[in-house]
Amino acid sequence: MNSKSGIKRLCIIGVGLIGGSLARALRRADVVEHIIGVGRSRKNLETALQLGVVDEITHDIGEGVRNADIVIVAVPMGMYENIFRAMAEHLQKHTIISDVGSTKSHALKVAKQYLTDASRFVPAHPIAGTEESGAAASFAGLFDDHTCILTPEESTDPEAVQCVEQMWKAAGSHVMQMDAATHDDLLAAVSHLPHLAAFALVNAVNKQKSGVFDPFAFAAGGFRDFTRIASSSPEMWRDIALCNRQALMHQLAALQKELSRLGDVLRKNDGKTLLDEFSAAKKARDQWLKENGTDL
Amino acid sequence: MNSKSGIKRLCIIGVGLIGGSLARALRRADVVEHIIGVGRSRKNLETALQLGVVDEITHDIGEGVRNADIVIVAVPMGMYENIFRAMAEHLQKHTIISDVGSTKSHALKVAKQYLTDASRFVPAHPIAGTEESGAAASFAGLFDDHTCILTPEESTDPEAVQCVEQMWKAAGSHVMQMDAATHDDLLAAVSHLPHLAAFALVNAVNKQKSGVFDPFAFAAGGFRDFTRIASSSPEMWRDIALCNRQALMHQLAALQKELSRLGDVLRKNDGKTLLDEFSAAKKARDQWLKENGTDL
Repeated sequence: MNSKSGIKRLCIIGVGLIGGSLARALRRADVVEHIIGVGRSRKNLETALQLGVVDEITHDIGEGVRNADIVIVAVPMGMYENIFRAMAEHLQKHTIISDVGSTKSHALKVAKQYLTDASRFVPAHPIAGTEESGAAASFAGLFDDHTCILTPEESTDPEAVQCVEQMWKAAGSHVMQMDAATHDDLLAAVSHLPHLAAFALVNAVNKQKSGVFDPFAFAAGGFRDFTRIASSSPEMWRDIALCNRQALMHQLAALQKELSRLGDVLRKNDGKTLLDEFSAAKKARDQWLKENGTDL
Repeated sequence: MNSKSGIKRLCIIGVGLIGGSLARALRRADVVEHIIGVGRSRKNLETALQLGVVDEITHDIGEGVRNADIVIVAVPMGMYENIFRAMAEHLQKHTIISDVGSTKSHALKVAKQYLTDASRFVPAHPIAGTEESGAAASFAGLFDDHTCILTPEESTDPEAVQCVEQMWKAAGSHVMQMDAATHDDLLAAVSHLPHLAAFALVNAVNKQKSGVFDPFAFAAGGFRDFTRIASSSPEMWRDIALCNRQALMHQLAALQKELSRLGDVLRKNDGKTLLDEFSAAKKARDQWLKENGTDL
């Protein structure tokens, strides 16, 4: 893509919340001529077609990618191997490949394993989403003012990087670059860990449920917001957790350490330290919200 | 209060988010004649007066409670001892005392320690709130369709219980009763524990912040919602955590157990168990939202 001609043929593999929203955002920006949606679910693809998210649909990945200028892999991380293996032989030399996955080291690893020319693969991660999924949940504004992180390597074709960067800017994102390992550590901290903790907390509470003791009946807005991400797709988060498990285990250990410390403080009935801990958290969170609140 | 005459003189000690919202809700229902606000902060009291939340303000607790029909203690749990001690000698025989605190065993303990006649004390906990505080943040609809739990004991005057129940119904709440210990266990699970975990997670992430590594810069909507409660008042949550620390330590241990289990599963790269865990959490959370979503 360049700013004059736009994208002639865009292939989106996986027309879900992210893939569908990218299609809508690029249409809104009028930078794409033809969008082919590839997927397994006939129902979801037909929805995408009916809603005008894509122009053409197919189950055949070879057919989908064959004449594409850009291919966006927007499937759960657990499907990367199958998708990259299946599309590799059908890609043209000029085709740029990118993805939207939440863990970038794994994406690079799979691309190098299967693509003939991995230098045309530009790993990308738009930091946006809701707990909804499917083409029907997609909307053009999903990426507006959100960050999209690209994690190219030294060997990545600079022209391909520029093209993907322009695409995400057209979709409304702020684009930045960093290396894949740093990305994975950062996202483990602010995204993967909260998801893990939310799932764990809901399970911890749910296991105590009994005829007389139903904690959920008394949960309010705080619980709803804290656990919103526990309503996310279990398959997607299993994949993310496994693909980024080293970084996630590291973050999990950091959280467990904090919780143990708070447990000790409670045991000692130490109000001063408890206040210090809570105040530090509030300060950090309020500061973050002040700096980033309007972008969320 | 009865449905015919309403409340003649209501004294609210602590005209913050909860106290102020109760005043507004009772006014909206037209069931109160005169509201006296008691507090330490002149600025907050004057705001409450200017906004019409209360009719009269005083720093003098004796003056505030002296002729009240109902006294509502709406201060942080850590101030209960001082407040109950200070008001005890000024209460009339017919005055009903209630509170809005998040831990009920502690409230009962303090009431029994200081009140001449603790049978007129009806412990109450409206399950509603925002992370805001102060009279300016109060609004009449805060309790609409939210649950308010009363935890009277066998020795509590049934007439006083009925009166407090009617008051909370007039304020828009669903009222239910249970014993204080059950209440405290339930709330430790669905409210106090999520707050502790949110504070801990923000601290765990914040401690990793450095010049090159700023996780907060990449946090998105999931992080915002997960950590919203970490912007709550540190003083209030210190008090709640300490007043309910046995139940909270029990819940903290349950969460730590779940997190350790997830850590083991990650270490073993066990996708099947991870999916089962995440799916169980999503199912429980979605079911809860389906049953209670409209009330939140």
